[in-house]
Amino acid sequence: MRLNMERTRIKRMLSSGEPGVRFRAAGWVRTRRDSKGGFSFIELNDGSCLANLQIIADWKTSGFPEMMGKIHTGCSMVAEGVLEASPGKGQRVELHADVLEIVGQADPAEYPLQKKRHSLEFLRTIAHLRPRTNTFGAVARVRNAMSFAIHEFFKQRGFILLHSPIISGSDCEGAGEMFRVTTLDLENPPLKDGRVDFEKDFFETPANLTVSGQLEAEIYALALGDVYTFGPTFRAENSNTSRHLAEFWMVEPEMAFCDLSGNMEVAESFLKYIFTYVLENCEEDMMFFKRFVDATVIDMLARLVKQNFEPLTYTKAVSILAEANESFEFPVSWGVDLQSEHERYLCEKVFDCPVILYDYPKDIKAFYMKVNEDRKTVRAMDVLVPRIGEIIGGSQREDDYDTLYQRMIEMDLNPDDYWWYLELRKFGSVPHSGFGLGFERLVQFVTGLSNIRDVIPFPRTPGNVAF
Amino acid sequence: MRLNMERTRIKRMLSSGEPGVRFRAAGWVRTRRDSKGGFSFIELNDGSCLANLQIIADWKTSGFPEMMGKIHTGCSMVAEGVLEASPGKGQRVELHADVLEIVGQADPAEYPLQKKRHSLEFLRTIAHLRPRTNTFGAVARVRNAMSFAIHEFFKQRGFILLHSPIISGSDCEGAGEMFRVTTLDLENPPLKDGRVDFEKDFFETPANLTVSGQLEAEIYALALGDVYTFGPTFRAENSNTSRHLAEFWMVEPEMAFCDLSGNMEVAESFLKYIFTYVLENCEEDMMFFKRFVDATVIDMLARLVKQNFEPLTYTKAVSILAEANESFEFPVSWGVDLQSEHERYLCEKVFDCPVILYDYPKDIKAFYMKVNEDRKTVRAMDVLVPRIGEIIGGSQREDDYDTLYQRMIEMDLNPDDYWWYLELRKFGSVPHSGFGLGFERLVQFVTGLSNIRDVIPFPRTPGNVAF
Repeated sequence: MRLNMERTRIKRMLSSGEPGVRFRAAGWVRTRRDSKGGFSFIELNDGSCLANLQIIADWKTSGFPEMMGKIHTGCSMVAEGVLEASPGKGQRVELHADVLEIVGQADPAEYPLQKKRHSLEFLRTIAHLRPRTNTFGAVARVRNAMSFAIHEFFKQRGFILLHSPIISGSDCEGAGEMFRVTTLDLENPPLKDGRVDFEKDFFETPANLTVSGQLEAEIYALALGDVYTFGPTFRAENSNTSRHLAEFWMVEPEMAFCDLSGNMEVAESFLKYIFTYVLENCEEDMMFFKRFVDATVIDMLARLVKQNFEPLTYTKAVSILAEANESFEFPVSWGVDLQSEHERYLCEKVFDCPVILYDYPKDIKAFYMKVNEDRKTVRAMDVLVPRIGEIIGGSQREDDYDTLYQRMIEMDLNPDDYWWYLELRKFGSVPHSGFGLGFERLVQFVTGLSNIRDVIPFPRTPGNVAF
Repeated sequence: MRLNMERTRIKRMLSSGEPGVRFRAAGWVRTRRDSKGGFSFIELNDGSCLANLQIIADWKTSGFPEMMGKIHTGCSMVAEGVLEASPGKGQRVELHADVLEIVGQADPAEYPLQKKRHSLEFLRTIAHLRPRTNTFGAVARVRNAMSFAIHEFFKQRGFILLHSPIISGSDCEGAGEMFRVTTLDLENPPLKDGRVDFEKDFFETPANLTVSGQLEAEIYALALGDVYTFGPTFRAENSNTSRHLAEFWMVEPEMAFCDLSGNMEVAESFLKYIFTYVLENCEEDMMFFKRFVDATVIDMLARLVKQNFEPLTYTKAVSILAEANESFEFPVSWGVDLQSEHERYLCEKVFDCPVILYDYPKDIKAFYMKVNEDRKTVRAMDVLVPRIGEIIGGSQREDDYDTLYQRMIEMDLNPDDYWWYLELRKFGSVPHSGFGLGFERLVQFVTGLSNIRDVIPFPRTPGNVAF
């Protein structure tokens, strides 16, 4: 078999392949249909796009007579021939193969991905094969496009990508339960005074998987101005829901000389940039999600990119919710954290657009958020979108050394653990702001898929670390 | 203080700011020099580029008289005024400030980054401040440019980015020592029959940090064609050298319908693309590395992008080395792994260009590499470059089920642990290839920095997980 660059990707053939020109395609058979006239229609997919290339083979096709009855769903093939205008509907061109070769078989008695539709639950058990389905191929391509759009957005604005550390020495970032990272022999750990002796561990101190790159991003923002992270983060929470992963990717921009309103501007522009990018670059895959997953996804994105996001203080939101003629599961009063039902009500029923809630009560927010002059609220913001609720959480950071120190004491944190974080407020401190966005939640929002396990290639959840 | 989008980044002012136009700059003071005439020159840096903006302030500048004697290295400032052509050498324009404001102080008695040069060793102990130095600012910008170039290269070729998992259930990827990830209480782990009961752990089985995304990338390549990973990987090896990190970023492309020669083509094009991108987009920072770190870096990259990489079998390389009139520390004979000294000799002395060594003895390579017809060698390749030696390692993968199964048995691996990896060879198997590149090694090569701890923001090494 001749390999390498000699194949043409199906995406290119279907979009711009000239009829009459010879091509070589390589991919995996989705279906085969035999006609009475002695020829076969083979639908070949190579992952470059959702659509298959229709291949026509008959008794004149070299190799074809011998392989009759051996071409099954899932087997890999190479096909060579001339592209012709297709008389059938649904495709512009088709390949009339004069050479056909089966590269790898897929025994129909064993191959689990037969023509019928499979449940998403079943497909999770074969995560090594599910990217060969329409749904997971489309998710992979859209996810890829969104990743690129993120880098492109920040590049255009002069942000620097920061690879923040994954293994963290602090176990007090305050964002949730952490995984321990160790090389100690768990069966027989070294002891000192009857306790595990972490001085013998790899890092000579306890170490964990990071829950956020924010604190490190602040370091770089206070040197380079505008930075962002895009990396994996972790939560060791026993949350077996359709919205939680133990390992997920997070985007965290951090901007120097930027207050909360600047933060809101970046967050809104950021979301619109990604949505626009997806609408412009992933039309075929988005049409698939619209047809088979959620009929509203395209319209929703198209509307969002044209709307102005509505800024709204927490205090005002609470009074709107308290007066609402709606029975919420969780009652609302000033000082409580809002639930998804409240967030969605504000976006979907009250404003009919994304809402940026800000100035939250300080007691329900993290220690690093800048305290407002009222001493009761902090410059936090959450961006809420329809169907999901919160999709971005951010804040202006406390940039005053003494105030930050006091907040740590109030919240029972040990300032010594944050010596370097405090020092950022001692040497050339500046107002700065940033936010975090859970990438998988955004992919869920864009694709309409309801379970977060279906928008990451290999989900990690309680009891599940397969593949 | 007015904030947000009103500042102009210094990079833009210096490159295209029109004299006579008002601007607002915000950044950190690098130095201040007072003239006898009653005015001061302030060098302001905002991280957008290496160069500082020269700011001229005098008694007419609002705020200036009060802050005389308070403007120190490291303090943050906002300056507003008219840009003027600079009579001094070294800069095209300078800012004549009519408003000046100190945003955050930096007490010279405490701030560790004073005007003098600091050793890289010392700067590692203040990783929260080192990005404010020329060297680490330049590293961050070049690293950022290289990251973007990687995504752009693969995008242009139709590759899909795969976020391969960080937490891995397999402890047998065969690439090195692994970190354990756990939520068990190490002081008091649950026991079963006297052994630690991992069924009570978060994932209900032992879990580790990944050493490579390759096996998962193969899954996606055999569905989508061409894919790549770019994510953190981990080695729990007690290697305290200038070339090893416990946590580092790796790029791993994987291509379906691609043999070893296709793999070589991608690897060579990939390196050239990144080097070209850096030469075209990071001129100022590269000039800095050339001047202060390694005088050869720019010439080296400029030469490499024009050279054809030399393919050379391992067998031929060994005979060249055996006949070389050179005393190597490690003797060479067929079957031994080559050392850095041998790799560098081939590149620097024999061919004077990058060399792609291939067809290595199977006994020194991993189980998944495709066995050649001689049954003695495998389709492995290493790309060697001057000064560093191996920078890329890759192979064509074994795509035959039975051969792969036998290799696992030979190498004492349990095929049950690789059931899904084996199934890729059962259902629609295709020839496929890929390689891995340690991103930090590449940043070292490009910048000339000799210690890998200086090219990643927060290095993790034995005994060090600070920041």
